[in-house]
Amino acid sequence: MKSLLVDAFEPPQRDSDRTLTEQIVAMMIHRLRTLGLRPGSRLPSIRAMAQHLGVSRFTVIEAYEQLVTQGWLQARQGAGYFVCSRAVPSDQGVLDPRAGSHRLVPDMPQQLNVAWLLNNTLRDVGSGGLSASCQTVCTHHTPRTESSGFVPGSSALLPHQWLDADLLAAAMRSVGRSSCTSVLGYGQPQGYAPLRASMAAHLQSLGIPADPQRNLLLTSGVTHAVDLVLRVLTSPGDAVLVEDPAWFLVFGRLAAAGVRVLGVPRTPEGPDLQVLENLARLHRPRLFIINSAVHNPTGHSLSARSAYAVLKLAEELDFHVFEDDTYGELHPGGAIRLAALDGLQRVLHAGGFSKTLAAGMRVAYMAAAPELIANLTDLKLLSGLTTPELPERVIQQILSSGQYHRHVQRVRSQVDAARHECLRRFAALGLRIEPEPVAGMFLWMDCQQDSEQLARRAAAEGLLLAPGSLFSPAQAPDSHIRFSVAIAQNPQAWAVVERLLR
Amino acid sequence: MKSLLVDAFEPPQRDSDRTLTEQIVAMMIHRLRTLGLRPGSRLPSIRAMAQHLGVSRFTVIEAYEQLVTQGWLQARQGAGYFVCSRAVPSDQGVLDPRAGSHRLVPDMPQQLNVAWLLNNTLRDVGSGGLSASCQTVCTHHTPRTESSGFVPGSSALLPHQWLDADLLAAAMRSVGRSSCTSVLGYGQPQGYAPLRASMAAHLQSLGIPADPQRNLLLTSGVTHAVDLVLRVLTSPGDAVLVEDPAWFLVFGRLAAAGVRVLGVPRTPEGPDLQVLENLARLHRPRLFIINSAVHNPTGHSLSARSAYAVLKLAEELDFHVFEDDTYGELHPGGAIRLAALDGLQRVLHAGGFSKTLAAGMRVAYMAAAPELIANLTDLKLLSGLTTPELPERVIQQILSSGQYHRHVQRVRSQVDAARHECLRRFAALGLRIEPEPVAGMFLWMDCQQDSEQLARRAAAEGLLLAPGSLFSPAQAPDSHIRFSVAIAQNPQAWAVVERLLR
Repeated sequence: MKSLLVDAFEPPQRDSDRTLTEQIVAMMIHRLRTLGLRPGSRLPSIRAMAQHLGVSRFTVIEAYEQLVTQGWLQARQGAGYFVCSRAVPSDQGVLDPRAGSHRLVPDMPQQLNVAWLLNNTLRDVGSGGLSASCQTVCTHHTPRTESSGFVPGSSALLPHQWLDADLLAAAMRSVGRSSCTSVLGYGQPQGYAPLRASMAAHLQSLGIPADPQRNLLLTSGVTHAVDLVLRVLTSPGDAVLVEDPAWFLVFGRLAAAGVRVLGVPRTPEGPDLQVLENLARLHRPRLFIINSAVHNPTGHSLSARSAYAVLKLAEELDFHVFEDDTYGELHPGGAIRLAALDGLQRVLHAGGFSKTLAAGMRVAYMAAAPELIANLTDLKLLSGLTTPELPERVIQQILSSGQYHRHVQRVRSQVDAARHECLRRFAALGLRIEPEPVAGMFLWMDCQQDSEQLARRAAAEGLLLAPGSLFSPAQAPDSHIRFSVAIAQNPQAWAVVERLLR
Repeated sequence: MKSLLVDAFEPPQRDSDRTLTEQIVAMMIHRLRTLGLRPGSRLPSIRAMAQHLGVSRFTVIEAYEQLVTQGWLQARQGAGYFVCSRAVPSDQGVLDPRAGSHRLVPDMPQQLNVAWLLNNTLRDVGSGGLSASCQTVCTHHTPRTESSGFVPGSSALLPHQWLDADLLAAAMRSVGRSSCTSVLGYGQPQGYAPLRASMAAHLQSLGIPADPQRNLLLTSGVTHAVDLVLRVLTSPGDAVLVEDPAWFLVFGRLAAAGVRVLGVPRTPEGPDLQVLENLARLHRPRLFIINSAVHNPTGHSLSARSAYAVLKLAEELDFHVFEDDTYGELHPGGAIRLAALDGLQRVLHAGGFSKTLAAGMRVAYMAAAPELIANLTDLKLLSGLTTPELPERVIQQILSSGQYHRHVQRVRSQVDAARHECLRRFAALGLRIEPEPVAGMFLWMDCQQDSEQLARRAAAEGLLLAPGSLFSPAQAPDSHIRFSVAIAQNPQAWAVVERLLR
């Protein structure tokens, strides 16, 4: 039976600047706001709506799904789409403080945890902190954004505006104009050969003896590289050293692997060498995971002395070192790499393009000893065959066009300027970091109060912050917050920070 | 010091139809053929060559790397590029029988094994069996093809000519013309929402109650889905049921997981129900991995009685069923799906676009019970964050443009015609399959002799065949060969088959 509701929705204008889906989404939001529908009201079926609007069923599905992801509709298995209670203003939940919005921010769990933060972070990634992007997060008129409703203040990605979507789009079109025949096949087990050649050249420029055939492997992000390495090098019960603080996702991965996680305090010079040696002698770890250059979250890079000491210990006690170079491109130059010192004997080196180009491309590389790369390639094949060639070709297109180097310089300048501005503003609030980091997109700020409490209060005001406890392998209470350097450029976000920290 | 050799190479013509890299590769092959260089001769450095040819270092790296992958050059870590012994005609190795080629096919191992076959298969994928593509495989003038030198006779991918590279290229350009902002972020943990909506609609059309939010996850190929499922559902020592014969890659993955693999003979109706029940009662498996529709390698689909019996047993003995629908789109319609019968209670259903659109996109989907999908999504995040959005958007572009359905129909017609032709030709050699498969791209042909011996003799003639023993969980000797239905359309390949089987 045809739902009578269908007539409430107007067919889209075919001559509009916007896509059909965008128009339908906007029209439906308008209608949902003005029709005063009960939560739970059933929307017209996809078929009926498609017929009524004179569009394909795919277009209607796309529009309905965007409304689901934006919190207006709910999909029920086999039953159709229903008006969501969230779409109707209510007094429940945490009210979004931003003007002009009826949205409610999603419920916070009693304890902030990695899964919750990661989920919200992923839903907001790249909207990182500028007021323009904040506006898009706050309104309902941005198709294709699955938003958590939070303004990210700790995002591990740079704001969209600092990156270059046009550069990517042009590279995609260029790849689309070239022969796509090779995409029909599975591609090469180690990844797209021309990109491997480019990565080898890049690594060689850092003094790392990479060779595109012998010791290089492309992966789907550095996270994939970590996963492969843990599966090849460790067994449940093994000890693995990590830095404290460090990237929290790795802790979840290590816990899932059933290994014993040992945290080594990170100083501005590198890992605390005495603690490292004590732990390594006592527990005989298989692996040490470290950011040599531009450590997440502190932004500091390894000193030469520290690098040498880490490698000597790794050699004496026979453990591998996974050098995660995710943020390395944000260093102005001259940062030491363990893989260069050690010549890829026991160091595995991984990096990628999530920070400088686009996280959604999931393109990364790993260099290691040839036998290890052979084993890692076998596991890559068995656990997912190849990495998709298309994103690898798009990245290679950008690299080979010669635009990447200048692009990274631009990104770095913007990050550096934002970091200085951010440090200046925190100093005005009486908060300083000593020594100041010389690179990177994070400030690891001691806020002199419990960071989880602080993050909860920030979340209640619509600002998502990553508390220090998340970065601790023991999830220990901590007074640090990892701020994105973009936060000072978002007036609303910064106002929340000032209120909380003054 | 500048190598004197550099002057032997001519700078490319800037006005040519071919890319710079293509020209340089062709020029260098010509020179390598005519200069009479000793194996081991060092090529000019990348810097010197780039300067001499007036091109970027990236272009030279790309050219050198293509020559490496084509077997002309060898890269030595830190030392540069050297003329390969393979590039110089010799009497060693297996001579390529095809006219006009100086190539040697790579050394075969003493025993054909999965790794070797997979490696060679991946290097040849999609070149599957037509003489036109055979020509490209045989010559040195195909940039971007990392060829093993073999003509594939058992390829699990359709020949390039049967697929539609232009359709993909157009979709890429279209995505490149749309806003690429969302690619800057990580994308959504379950995968690109509009594609999930399309997949839900597709699965619903098969009677499978899929919902884009609740019970669907996009993965990087079905192999990735298998990997996630094994990691979530099994522990070392658990029993896992597979079909015999079945897709050999899964055996390698299961062995790596340390599970006990139990093979259930596959009949034209489905798994041998008596053996299935005996094994399941005795070993209490966690999981049964099955192709319901268009089984690899036999091409047969599950009967209704068999499907019902499998599900009843799974319920009684409490095991999950992973329904791999990789080849399902090749069925003319009406094939039964376990996930439809069971309503995604204990059946996990996975499929993708490797066979119908492009394996190199690595886009697949999995539907299962919501709690399972939540766990699988968590593991997907921890082990690699998200799947890249770009290939997912390209696929969605093709689906939403309405071209996919017609494309699949064309592909299926071509496959069906080739299968009939192939069956006719085998019948002329006295070889028949009873009952004949009504769908699919493989013929599981009993060649009435040891298939490994046969595959070795074929390989010596430059034809790559997958022997039956590979498809046996016990690697048991077998007289079947999995032929690609494209083989009858490749005169050279078919001539080898006739010689071997007559």
